[in-house]
Amino acid sequence: MKEALLHMLAENEGEFVSGQQISENLNCSRTAIWKHISELRKSGYSIEAVQKRGYRLLTSPDLVTAEEVSLYTGNGTFGKKVTYKTSVKSTQEIAHSLAREGALEGSIVLADEQTGGRGRLGRAWQSPSGTGIWMSLILRPEIPLQKAPQLTLLIAVAASRAIEKVTGLEAAIKWPNDLLIKGKKVAGILTELQAEADSIHSVIVGIGMNVNQEKKHFTEEISEIATSLAIEGGKTYKRAEIAGAVLQEIENLYRSYLVKGFAVIKLLWEARAYSLGKRITARSVTGSITGYAKGITDEGVLLLEDDNGEIHSIYSADIEFPSH
Amino acid sequence: MKEALLHMLAENEGEFVSGQQISENLNCSRTAIWKHISELRKSGYSIEAVQKRGYRLLTSPDLVTAEEVSLYTGNGTFGKKVTYKTSVKSTQEIAHSLAREGALEGSIVLADEQTGGRGRLGRAWQSPSGTGIWMSLILRPEIPLQKAPQLTLLIAVAASRAIEKVTGLEAAIKWPNDLLIKGKKVAGILTELQAEADSIHSVIVGIGMNVNQEKKHFTEEISEIATSLAIEGGKTYKRAEIAGAVLQEIENLYRSYLVKGFAVIKLLWEARAYSLGKRITARSVTGSITGYAKGITDEGVLLLEDDNGEIHSIYSADIEFPSH
Repeated sequence: MKEALLHMLAENEGEFVSGQQISENLNCSRTAIWKHISELRKSGYSIEAVQKRGYRLLTSPDLVTAEEVSLYTGNGTFGKKVTYKTSVKSTQEIAHSLAREGALEGSIVLADEQTGGRGRLGRAWQSPSGTGIWMSLILRPEIPLQKAPQLTLLIAVAASRAIEKVTGLEAAIKWPNDLLIKGKKVAGILTELQAEADSIHSVIVGIGMNVNQEKKHFTEEISEIATSLAIEGGKTYKRAEIAGAVLQEIENLYRSYLVKGFAVIKLLWEARAYSLGKRITARSVTGSITGYAKGITDEGVLLLEDDNGEIHSIYSADIEFPSH
Repeated sequence: MKEALLHMLAENEGEFVSGQQISENLNCSRTAIWKHISELRKSGYSIEAVQKRGYRLLTSPDLVTAEEVSLYTGNGTFGKKVTYKTSVKSTQEIAHSLAREGALEGSIVLADEQTGGRGRLGRAWQSPSGTGIWMSLILRPEIPLQKAPQLTLLIAVAASRAIEKVTGLEAAIKWPNDLLIKGKKVAGILTELQAEADSIHSVIVGIGMNVNQEKKHFTEEISEIATSLAIEGGKTYKRAEIAGAVLQEIENLYRSYLVKGFAVIKLLWEARAYSLGKRITARSVTGSITGYAKGITDEGVLLLEDDNGEIHSIYSADIEFPSH
């Protein structure tokens, strides 16, 4: 009801919507409307109320609540079921436990702040309050386990497209899971699984994206390697709008992927890849290999040609760009 | 302490061990020994106590407790940390949550009875009290996700070898995860994962094995397709001995696999495979294919040649043997 009311006001942003119109559309009393208007105001929405004219939405706060995100998810089903928290340890943890309890595909968990956000391989991910998108999405693809890494690449393409759509900024993909703007990390993707050896129960996709951090939010050391959409775009963005665009792009690519397979995703990925054709070093627990990034396989494996012309299959590694 | 006492008695089964010897070896008082002897008797161990001669273990109950299993795990580390319960919903559930809390590789969960035992693809698995081995094992292999299905095959080989070692019975492997004696199912393996797209956090291996069920325990319908070691061997077995042998075989193959890869396991698997070279039907949600089982790939994928000579890669399916 509060969500539907917000939709009516947002669709007519800057214009008055009469109490009677709302009452008829949403089939509720004037008193109920007033109660929800008060709640929205408390959440930070600035809503003008003028007798005989009705209500007018003047400005919206930068929130990632269910109501706010639902304004931007279009006709998709991803993001229709939102678990929103102001502060959590990790949205991944919550999503894992929702998935175990049977949460439907497309359910998401969003938080304003993560106190123990995780990146790939258990690394910490800084998720300060109100500055970025800290989101986990539950998928239930009927694909073999061997193909699960393809989803990381799919999500990276979708997130990069969403950024471009909303901000005009170009975000390149660094294998396997980082988005870079001008060489600096703006987003990371964490793909986790609950699976049997031959059947995936659920994929929990974590997306961390720096949106409205200013340069002063980063230490000097961090600002050498990380950035935000606001720093690169020179303005702030509505996080809900970007989150909604990310969900729409993911859903579109995902539906196509389930029907047509990885070929299209692979082309899109390669077009946005940062490291392809470049000289890179792949560093892992077992050692490091330097060579030219030749491409990715259908399993999402990175192919690296060393100086002896030998091709290495890289399943998991950190990519570095030798400075020479 | 109780475990060490049982070890001393079991190593000298049928012979007396003096109170003084026990007291010195285990560095404990005569009163403490007596307390533990009483507890063991309560658990079903028949222990004779004769003044001036000491204690003598006459018979042991068929238990799968930590103490009992530890008698049969040899020098291995698998099965050294045992969580034993008389009755649980599912040992897999407990093992999953232990794994999330950081349980070490080789930790196991054993139960006398499962009230909600699960097989592959969420199917029910009958686990009546005191008749079989209902066990979950936590592994933490540093292998790519794509190779995880190999572990199901490794476990099947290990379980088949353990059965042969203890009972002399030959158990064939039906791809991907069943053990058959004379065409009837005697054990099933469930391999579940907690993983990232490029890194496995833990593998939870569930093993369900029918040990001491008699024919009358099965309905007529079930006894057409299922059997137990006791039915096939014509005698009952100590479940702990078989569980210990399974753990030892798994650990040996697993250590070799991590160093040398899948090639050896593949040969062992093929030698014990039930369906290779046979005409089979692979039935899955997307349809069914009939043809000749040609072999498995290094990713544990089953290769099936249909009547047009086309080779199909089977990632997940139920295998049936057409009756003609």
